[in-house]
Amino acid sequence: MFDHFRFVLCHTTHPGNIGATARALKTMGFSRLVLVQPRHFPSDEATVRASGADDLLQQATLCTTLDEALQGTTLAVGLTARRRDLSHPMLTLRDMAVNAPLEASGAGEVALVFGTEMSGLSNAELDLCQRLVHIPTDPTFSSLNLASAVQLVAYELRQTLLQDATQLPQTREYPLAHHEELEQFYRHLERVLLASTFLDPQHPGRLMTRLRRLFSRARIEREEVNILRGILKSLYPADNGSDPVDTRTASHV
Amino acid sequence: MFDHFRFVLCHTTHPGNIGATARALKTMGFSRLVLVQPRHFPSDEATVRASGADDLLQQATLCTTLDEALQGTTLAVGLTARRRDLSHPMLTLRDMAVNAPLEASGAGEVALVFGTEMSGLSNAELDLCQRLVHIPTDPTFSSLNLASAVQLVAYELRQTLLQDATQLPQTREYPLAHHEELEQFYRHLERVLLASTFLDPQHPGRLMTRLRRLFSRARIEREEVNILRGILKSLYPADNGSDPVDTRTASHV
Repeated sequence: MFDHFRFVLCHTTHPGNIGATARALKTMGFSRLVLVQPRHFPSDEATVRASGADDLLQQATLCTTLDEALQGTTLAVGLTARRRDLSHPMLTLRDMAVNAPLEASGAGEVALVFGTEMSGLSNAELDLCQRLVHIPTDPTFSSLNLASAVQLVAYELRQTLLQDATQLPQTREYPLAHHEELEQFYRHLERVLLASTFLDPQHPGRLMTRLRRLFSRARIEREEVNILRGILKSLYPADNGSDPVDTRTASHV
Repeated sequence: MFDHFRFVLCHTTHPGNIGATARALKTMGFSRLVLVQPRHFPSDEATVRASGADDLLQQATLCTTLDEALQGTTLAVGLTARRRDLSHPMLTLRDMAVNAPLEASGAGEVALVFGTEMSGLSNAELDLCQRLVHIPTDPTFSSLNLASAVQLVAYELRQTLLQDATQLPQTREYPLAHHEELEQFYRHLERVLLASTFLDPQHPGRLMTRLRRLFSRARIEREEVNILRGILKSLYPADNGSDPVDTRTASHV
């Protein structure tokens, strides 16, 4: 089960935090570290702070974009101290952890996504997450160190995973859509909305963000994505987007 | 309630860990940091790693011994990765945290005690604790950073304290004995055992440690200490120890 979780650090500034993150993960039995454009890596400081967990650093996956880092996941959980103005579900760490084994059930993979030290996850990065989680800190001093946040998340997940070790999660009857299938859907949707002029490219506002959040709350299954894309295709047959639609499923609705 | 908890770091080697501890505590709403013979303090590295929590460093209490650091506490919780051979209760972090508000009820103060980075708490230090707590880590890599351990403990305590914020703990009907009263009792007991020759000063073995653990499990009340010392006094009136016995209470049993 621990292998179903990957920890994604975006644009980390201090290599010491990457090393401390590796150590934090390994103490809690996790091993999959993904780095999106770290400023300095590999680095001696990272290795020193890893303090025996340098195997995780060596095996870390380096990515250029968060999108790339999320390939193959069915759930991306963004850690953020910020409150959003939109209706995205914001969970506490414990609430998220309690549900994690269920979320990671079946063939699903879960990504825990951490932003850069100074400013956290950008809006564009948050838009790629289906769940937002905050760690309840003192409201007057919420300046949690990056590796400390990872430590808390890994600890909470470990508590739940060990508790539920006897009751292994069942395979979902209907597998969830993977990240890349959802992104293909969003791109398809955007093209259709542009074509229909509902979406004004000069003034897009937050329309796509709102739609993403709506669908995020629903946790879309793979077949449902095909259905939705079949609908889009039927509404706008002239679409020449390059993402293939699985028309077999879509036509059998 | 948060002021009822003090975090005691014993013989910390790296000042960076002291700074990171201050930051970890402040994010979770705690402020009382006690340092027993830190190797380097104050230190620029500590201030840098505190990252805005340097007020906790400035207000930190410096002590020469753990005994001094525990003055006024009714419960000392030692954090340790080690299993002990003796029957000292070993709790998981969460079990400890769940009971913490009750333990800190009334006028009681609770100390969370952390050992030195490389080897943790010594046996002598563990003997001054009434509870031992371990953080469940991966058995193949339990090398938790000191400040990370503090972060996890502070987080767990915060979760419980906030949950129970509405149901403030009741004052204990019978106040618990303070650390120094217990220590006076142990010294008195030891003198009596030596005088009785039950305790052989040439071969003390672990007798006092075992007795400490026995009484630790019981969480002794203040009046009970007076009663016990009254008993000791009555058994060995010649004792010339300097710790005064509250004979009013003792004689009224």
